[in-house]
Order: sequence, then structure tokens, then C-alpha cells
Amino acid sequence: MISRRSLLASTMLLAVGRLTPALADEPCCATGDLGLVVERANASLLVIDRSQRASIGRIEGLGDLSHASLTYSPDERYAFVFGRDGGLTKVDMLTRSIAKRVVQAGNSIGGAISDDGKLIAVSNYEPGGVRVFDADTLDMVADIPAGAKTIGLADVPGRRFIWSLWDTGETWIADFSTPDMKLTKLADVGKNPFDGVLTDDGRIYLVGLFGEKGVTAIDLWSDDPKPVRFLKDYGKTEDDLPVYKMPHLQGWAFTDGQFVLPAVGQHELLWVDRSTLEQTGRTPTHGQPVFIIAQPASPYVWVNFATPLNDTVQVVDSRTHQVVHTLTPGPAVLHMEFAPRGAEVWISVRDANKVLIYDTRSFAQIGEIEAQSPSGIFFTARAHQTGL
Amino acid sequence: MISRRSLLASTMLLAVGRLTPALADEPCCATGDLGLVVERANASLLVIDRSQRASIGRIEGLGDLSHASLTYSPDERYAFVFGRDGGLTKVDMLTRSIAKRVVQAGNSIGGAISDDGKLIAVSNYEPGGVRVFDADTLDMVADIPAGAKTIGLADVPGRRFIWSLWDTGETWIADFSTPDMKLTKLADVGKNPFDGVLTDDGRIYLVGLFGEKGVTAIDLWSDDPKPVRFLKDYGKTEDDLPVYKMPHLQGWAFTDGQFVLPAVGQHELLWVDRSTLEQTGRTPTHGQPVFIIAQPASPYVWVNFATPLNDTVQVVDSRTHQVVHTLTPGPAVLHMEFAPRGAEVWISVRDANKVLIYDTRSFAQIGEIEAQSPSGIFFTARAHQTGL
Repeated sequence: MISRRSLLASTMLLAVGRLTPALADEPCCATGDLGLVVERANASLLVIDRSQRASIGRIEGLGDLSHASLTYSPDERYAFVFGRDGGLTKVDMLTRSIAKRVVQAGNSIGGAISDDGKLIAVSNYEPGGVRVFDADTLDMVADIPAGAKTIGLADVPGRRFIWSLWDTGETWIADFSTPDMKLTKLADVGKNPFDGVLTDDGRIYLVGLFGEKGVTAIDLWSDDPKPVRFLKDYGKTEDDLPVYKMPHLQGWAFTDGQFVLPAVGQHELLWVDRSTLEQTGRTPTHGQPVFIIAQPASPYVWVNFATPLNDTVQVVDSRTHQVVHTLTPGPAVLHMEFAPRGAEVWISVRDANKVLIYDTRSFAQIGEIEAQSPSGIFFTARAHQTGL
Repeated sequence: MISRRSLLASTMLLAVGRLTPALADEPCCATGDLGLVVERANASLLVIDRSQRASIGRIEGLGDLSHASLTYSPDERYAFVFGRDGGLTKVDMLTRSIAKRVVQAGNSIGGAISDDGKLIAVSNYEPGGVRVFDADTLDMVADIPAGAKTIGLADVPGRRFIWSLWDTGETWIADFSTPDMKLTKLADVGKNPFDGVLTDDGRIYLVGLFGEKGVTAIDLWSDDPKPVRFLKDYGKTEDDLPVYKMPHLQGWAFTDGQFVLPAVGQHELLWVDRSTLEQTGRTPTHGQPVFIIAQPASPYVWVNFATPLNDTVQVVDSRTHQVVHTLTPGPAVLHMEFAPRGAEVWISVRDANKVLIYDTRSFAQIGEIEAQSPSGIFFTARAHQTGL
């Protein structure tokens, strides 16, 4: 059996003559170890190669990349970038260029790709609601207005998406597994949800509330999912320190049977038992936690902090709830991304214009990449994870 | 910033003239959704494209592929295939050809790739011991004789490998994180370990015993890991049914805070609480379970069975321990591999010469691929998982 691609490659080798050695050595490019770094000020994405620990290209013209996030196609070839200006941009990792770009709303805040890789959903502030696009063409296939700002959009197995509504305190689930999309609306999720996140096993959708104390959990494995409140003292109080940055729930980690979340306005992490939803511990930290990210295949979570204490990263053991290591990568640590098997962590240090790479076991710095005011770092391995 | 690859591609586009449209459309090939199916009788591997639900090539000349397994490089370009004849073959997914092949022992039984992707370890029956190779060149970088058959080889975070010794009842851990490899030997793991497996979080190494009853757990997150016996009645007894196939531990699933394992010689699954190591339930099944595989981001495990009841697959809910669905794919179901986010499962049906693809939510068959006596199915997404 000879594939079309192999035939093409053979023909090319004959045709291009002197390029043959380079082509034979590098007939194509595998995409399993690539990634993108958001360069917000520059409206660009830096293409990175994890194995080479190097940048290998830059893609420009992405629009407003404040709070930008992105997701990858199952073949790890395309990234779908969700810009704050309502732009949905499809980026080709192989040609390192924009394959397609649509401005689909006035103000958007994240998106997700369906588990079959065919649908891209985008969450909008203006005009509100969620819009769903064909991943190949970026043609709109569904418009789901809500009369409300939507937040916390995530993919759910079975060609589904979930999100919450700031204005009405609801969570909606759209099921695209049949030709007629089915919409389920859960009421009484809580006042002014400000973010939502799905646990790594796809089971629990957690909703953070701005308008009242507490956190809401919804068990998506249930036939009849119901919102359950927990941590009923959780949230901002009069006595808290000023909140420099409202923690995003994407910053919650799930490790060793626990949730870990930032205490709002405090220099502290909170630990919650995953099965009982009871608080089980607190960890004093260097500053107000922003992202808390679990190091894969380890007991550790890594934490960065809000300004003005944002030059530091701390490593915390989920078994003892103790800080075991403190690093000072430099001014304005904005994000951390782990190699998928946990061997190294890439840290964006915005005001140093660098991404630093550390060995997670020795904490030695093992690499450094120039980048323009780097923020989010996204490896292609995310293509294979639910809820990202 | 323009990469060397982009420049090459541009030059090629100018040179090859009429091939330009096809190249522009398909300048390269991403590798995130590819995979390999072992065709044992044919000594070949079928290259599959998950998104197309199709085979796209065949690689021949792999030697004895009985019980063959394989692992992928971090960029998802290369597969390292461990053959029963001691052959270690490096396969290029892009050119669909053998990049390198060495016969490194007389009889080998599996291997692993280090978390940085640089080292390949192979477990040998004959002459025994473990040999470690450079992933680029397949040159041997370490020979670790044991005077014993080695089994249950797995990668452990931090450039480490773990395996057990059939003859001496030990577990060894080799640490390659520094220039001088450090070897740790744990004694009294149990009589005649027949297989070992690492939990999905990289924490617990489980060892199945042939020479005595029980299972051994070793906590690798501990500074001083110790073997702990549990399920002390586990194993073959006089009264058991004949054991048609000794269950491999790679067939154990880890889901919802539990281990699930096959009762030896029985038509039954056993459920063990992960934190207490106590048995919590039993599930009667269609036949003697062989592989028990967790469907990602779901409460379900899928089970296939030993001959003569091997035409069937059952789906079991890990919350209730009840069978929720039974399928009959056809004669000799040998393996099951899930799309990494769980949307579909690929099932090899050896005596039908087919790989069948099912939607995991509706259980509808959604695809079918011709294959020659297919056994193991391996998607490239495994590159990003610890312990596989």
C-alpha cells in the first residue's frame, strides 16, 4: 500500500535535485513537540520547538491578544486563537502562517474545540452568547445567543460544550452529537459566575462566583446534573487585601484527589478534597496566586503570583501542602507550561522578554528563548486533553 | 523570523511547478493523529490516520512481532518497536519506512522511552537484564545485566526507568538524570513477578506475582520506596477455571480513585480502592478479562476476553461496577485503543482482518479498516503519556 503523500514525496525528490539530501533528512515536520507563545504587545505568536528548546518562527497579524487563549486540532497542525477583539484565527503550525481569520464578535473571551476536532466554539461578551464554527472553513454552524455575557467555555466529551452566563447565573450545555443541537440549561448556579473550568477527568465543572460567596460544582457524569455549592466562605471580603488580579479558574489544579485554588485577595492556596468538597488545608505563599498548575506525573503544583510580587514561582507538595522550592525567574512571570510528561517547565517572563526553561527535578535552568513580552505558552500536546 | 524549513518549502514550491497546488494544500504532514497497528503474521505495521479513519501506508520487515509493543518520540515522528526476536526497530511515521533496526538481544519483551525522549530502554528475557539505547542512533549507552529475566519495564519521570526481575523477585530503578547512572534495587517484591505497570499519575508501580498470592505496590513518590503487598488472595488457585491467558498488567485500568484488575482464571473484574488498597467490588463478566482499558474523560472501562469467548467487548461503569453495554465486534478481539479525548475506540478483530471504529457514546460503528491479523493498536498521542 503506497500513500498519496509518499508518491508525492518521491516525485518531489526526483524533481528538486540538489535539495534531495535536506529533504531526505527532513521530509516533513512532525508536530508533536511544537508550541506557541503569545506575544501580546506585538499581536504575534512565537512558534517554538520543545525538543530543540528554540523558537522556529513567528506569526504576525493576530489582532488584540489580551487574555488570548488557543486550542489545537487533533492532528496538532492547526491552532485556533481566540482574541479579545472577537477575532478567531486559524494558524497553520507547518507553514507558520495564518490559514484563516474571521472577526466573529465585538469582544470574545476564550473558546474550545469539540472532542472530534470538527467544531470550534467561541464565548462572547459582546454581543454575548456562544458561536460555533466549522473547524475546516471557520463558517458559522450555530449561533446560540444568551442575552448575557458567557464565560468558562469548555469542551465536554460527546461533541458537547459547556459555559456559564454572568448575567443570569446559569450554566448551559450544548450537545452537537446529533444533527439537531440539543441545549440544556441549568439554573441557580450562583450569582455572577466569573469563570468555569472542567476537571481533568471531564467529570466536574467548577464555577467561580463573583456576586456571592462559594464555588459551584456540577457532576457531568450524572444523568441529571445539579449545581452543588461548596467552600461557602470562598470569595472576597471587606477585610481582604486588595485583589490585584481576580484569579482565573484555569489556574486551579487537580492533583492527588484534591482541588487546589487561590484564596481570593490572600497570599494563600486552599486545598479541597475532591470527593467530599471539604476544605482540607491551606498553604501560605509568597503572594496572591494567579496560576496553580500541576506538574504532570508528580505530587507538585507550581504557582505564580499577582503584581507586585510577580517575579517569583513557588513549588508546593500536594501531599504535605508545604512549599518545597522557590524560584525567581524575573520580572512579570505570566504563565507556565509543562512538557506533557513533566520533565521540564517553560515560564514566560514578560518584562525580561524571555521564556525560561527549567528542569523540574533539579530546578536547574536548561534553556532560554527570546520573546517579545511573552504571556501564554501552549504546547501542541494540549490537542489530546479534554477541557483545555 | 523565517525558518529553514519555510525557506526550503518555498524553494521547493518554485522548483516543482505543477505539484504546487497539492503541496500548498499539504505542505507537510502533521503527526498528532497518526498511529500504528501491529500485523503480527505479516511482520508489518499498518500506518493509520485517526482523522481520516483510514490506513495510509504499511511498513514491512519488522521481524517477530509476537507480543510486540511500541512507544513514540516526543515529536510523534518516530516509533520504537520492541519485537520478540530482540529486534529494536525505529520507524519513521513521515516517510513510512524503517529508519534503523538493531537486533539487540535474543528475546525481548517490551521497552520504554525516557521522559526527555533521548533514551530507549529494552527489557530482555535472553540474555536477561535491560539495555539502554540512544534514541537518535540506537547505539547502546548502557547494559544493565541482571542474571534474570526482566519484566514490567516502564519510564518514570526524571529520566528514570523501572523494571522487575522474574528470577529474584526484585524491582530495579535506573536513574539517568546525571552522567553516572544510579541503580536502586528493591528486594522482597514478591516471588516471580510476571508483569509490572505504572499508574497514570506516575506514582504507584504495581507488580503482579506468579509464584505467590497477592499484588505488590511501590510508591515512587516516596523518598524511600518500599514494596507493600495487597489483595493477598489474588492469583491462581486449584479451583480456578483454566487460565487461557495470563492477564497482562497493562490491562489494568485506573479510574475514579480505583484500580480495576482481572480476577485470574475467573469471569470477573476486581475493584480496589486506590488509597486504601482494599478490594471494594467485583463485576461478573462475559469471559476471562484480558485488557481493561479506561475510556478517557469518562466513568467507563472497556474489557475484552480470552479465547474462546474473545468475540465480545463489555463496557463497565466504574461508579456502579455494573456492565452497561455489550458489543460483539467479531472473532478474536485482541486490543482496544481510544482516541485521546475518548470520542471513539478502535478495536482490532484479528480473525476478521479488520479494525473496527466505534463511537463511545452511541456505540455505533463509525468506521472499518482492512488489516492483516491485527493485534496492538497504538496512537501517537501515547508520546505524551507517562508509563506507556
